[in-house]
Amino acid sequence: MTEIPDRFEPPERFLMGPGPSAVNPRVLRAMAAPVIGHLDPATFDMMNELQDMLRQIFRTSNDLTYPVSGTGTAGMETALANVLEPGDVAIALVSGMFAERMREIASRYGADVVTVGGEWGVPVDPRDVAAALDQHPNAKAVCAVHTETSTGLRQPLQEIGRICADRGALFLVDAVASLGGMEVDTDGWGIDVCYSGSQKCLSAPPGLAPITFSDRAFAAMEARKKPPSTFYLDAMLIRRYVGTERLYHHTAPVSMLYALHEALRLVLEEGLEARWRRHEEIGGELLAMLEERGFRPVPPEGYRAPQLACVWLPEGFEDRPNRTRLLQEFGIEVAGGLGQFAGKVWRVGVMGESCNRDYVKALAEGLDQLLAG
Amino acid sequence: MTEIPDRFEPPERFLMGPGPSAVNPRVLRAMAAPVIGHLDPATFDMMNELQDMLRQIFRTSNDLTYPVSGTGTAGMETALANVLEPGDVAIALVSGMFAERMREIASRYGADVVTVGGEWGVPVDPRDVAAALDQHPNAKAVCAVHTETSTGLRQPLQEIGRICADRGALFLVDAVASLGGMEVDTDGWGIDVCYSGSQKCLSAPPGLAPITFSDRAFAAMEARKKPPSTFYLDAMLIRRYVGTERLYHHTAPVSMLYALHEALRLVLEEGLEARWRRHEEIGGELLAMLEERGFRPVPPEGYRAPQLACVWLPEGFEDRPNRTRLLQEFGIEVAGGLGQFAGKVWRVGVMGESCNRDYVKALAEGLDQLLAG
Repeated sequence: MTEIPDRFEPPERFLMGPGPSAVNPRVLRAMAAPVIGHLDPATFDMMNELQDMLRQIFRTSNDLTYPVSGTGTAGMETALANVLEPGDVAIALVSGMFAERMREIASRYGADVVTVGGEWGVPVDPRDVAAALDQHPNAKAVCAVHTETSTGLRQPLQEIGRICADRGALFLVDAVASLGGMEVDTDGWGIDVCYSGSQKCLSAPPGLAPITFSDRAFAAMEARKKPPSTFYLDAMLIRRYVGTERLYHHTAPVSMLYALHEALRLVLEEGLEARWRRHEEIGGELLAMLEERGFRPVPPEGYRAPQLACVWLPEGFEDRPNRTRLLQEFGIEVAGGLGQFAGKVWRVGVMGESCNRDYVKALAEGLDQLLAG
Repeated sequence: MTEIPDRFEPPERFLMGPGPSAVNPRVLRAMAAPVIGHLDPATFDMMNELQDMLRQIFRTSNDLTYPVSGTGTAGMETALANVLEPGDVAIALVSGMFAERMREIASRYGADVVTVGGEWGVPVDPRDVAAALDQHPNAKAVCAVHTETSTGLRQPLQEIGRICADRGALFLVDAVASLGGMEVDTDGWGIDVCYSGSQKCLSAPPGLAPITFSDRAFAAMEARKKPPSTFYLDAMLIRRYVGTERLYHHTAPVSMLYALHEALRLVLEEGLEARWRRHEEIGGELLAMLEERGFRPVPPEGYRAPQLACVWLPEGFEDRPNRTRLLQEFGIEVAGGLGQFAGKVWRVGVMGESCNRDYVKALAEGLDQLLAG
């Protein structure tokens, strides 16, 4: 017997977790335009514009720059699977779950992974990276997370980029939670592969992962002995679609591309520096508000990502019941801790469209009622 | 210097290629609803409904049934990467490019692949499948494409399913271009893994790949020695998110899920049998119209998918200039040939919302002008 559910209507939410963030109505409207084909000349024109905007936002002149047809984790897998071959040595800088995920994926694709750091919420010392590269002089890649979504840690990258360039290792960076909300200078910092997600500081819906590859990364992919196991994420095949050849690889998710195109226009209209400043200011206000209420930030001072506060819960303050109340009574979504931080921290984001004072104020009011019991 | 392109407005198109097909305004409106989180209880409720609807459309009671967060090729890779381990023998039934793609992905993931058939547009004889299984009695899987998008071939599956069940091989089926437009009876035909794409006969935008795994397929995945290289498409991890555990794996593309939810509601409102009949009728009219104008179908009679006519071009009729004129002057998209069929065939689809007489009539009028010179 056929059973048809009712039309789905999402509830109203203040999205203050670590993504997805709120999406501007202009982006939603763009996404709802009629679908056209992935081989339509109009799609190619849009894709070209989208790639140009991504280059501006990544601050790169890399030719191979495109949105992966999947979420941030697909971007991560694209970076690792395409650059690393079985037997390659990769150095992973670990301060949280997403760096651990990079390590796991590198290892699934056959790399020998060396860990630097490892403690959640603690930044990696560039000297330890240099030491690891001294010990493993033929390491092919160093993998780092710019803003660690599991701990709110901001890992400075410039010095590590210099160290990688000096030793000839490729520098792979996860900018899923930072691109569009904090300075990311792909070329200036010597990053060889940088990827992000559509649904955080870029404030498009989840489903795309912008990525960019340097010429050095491209040369490494060209020199592979075998293509990677993954076909769907094979960058050397996809480049034949996103490049001038326009060869079919898979059906590009056109509606998501419309959405990202409009979201990137919004980013550039605001201006990158202005956007970073907004995240820094409002993120500062968010953290101050949380600290006033007894939440303490996880990362040490100087290493906190403004757009994502990861905070220890006040003594006696319960995780799940309070998050449920916040969602149900106030329509506010914040996230609990992942893995070893489950039940101990909250992760509160002010990313992209969610980065505004009204949201911080709404959360302050909600928290005051929760804390009153 | 910042360069911001204009707002993108897609041109109006009759989508008559092999997907994407036209999308109902109800689906576009659903997609444009505000984004909510992937861990929101409301998202889980919607996901449950979506999975229930997919089970009805796949005609299965399989528990592990969900939309892969990627396009049809991601569905294909999910099926192969999760079921096959390095060293496994897989038998691929090849009648076109997408079966060749299954073979390539299986081989990238380390399987030893045996090909049955191999000629484009020619159906595989079930007796040849039985013979291959006699020769390779420990083959783990048989891989087939139900509707081959590159050739318009409809491969009957019921008998092959019986042969696989008799010999204990898993039966993996690509229903990307058939689900929702032709009978697909996952359980009745003994299919162990069946996947599709959102953008063909289901008429949602491209970006999701519904998939379902039988208990036998699930047991094979549980018995793996190692997880597959792909993390993004690892079904045993994703099942912890789409199942009752609700554990985070990746950020589900919520807007695409809204769209698919509404598109599946439309499929069930019409009714599966009525929908198959519509595709058969209009597909018959389409082919008759094309044959009247000198196009000849590629697959032999009895093996033609009604929703996708793959036809040889009439003598002297040029491929690319005529497709360009059709698109630019009439707004009609049809597809050229892939691979060895490039320049020789057109692929004309009437799938989902694109399956209606107005579209066939518009194409007939356009073709008449092209043929008049």
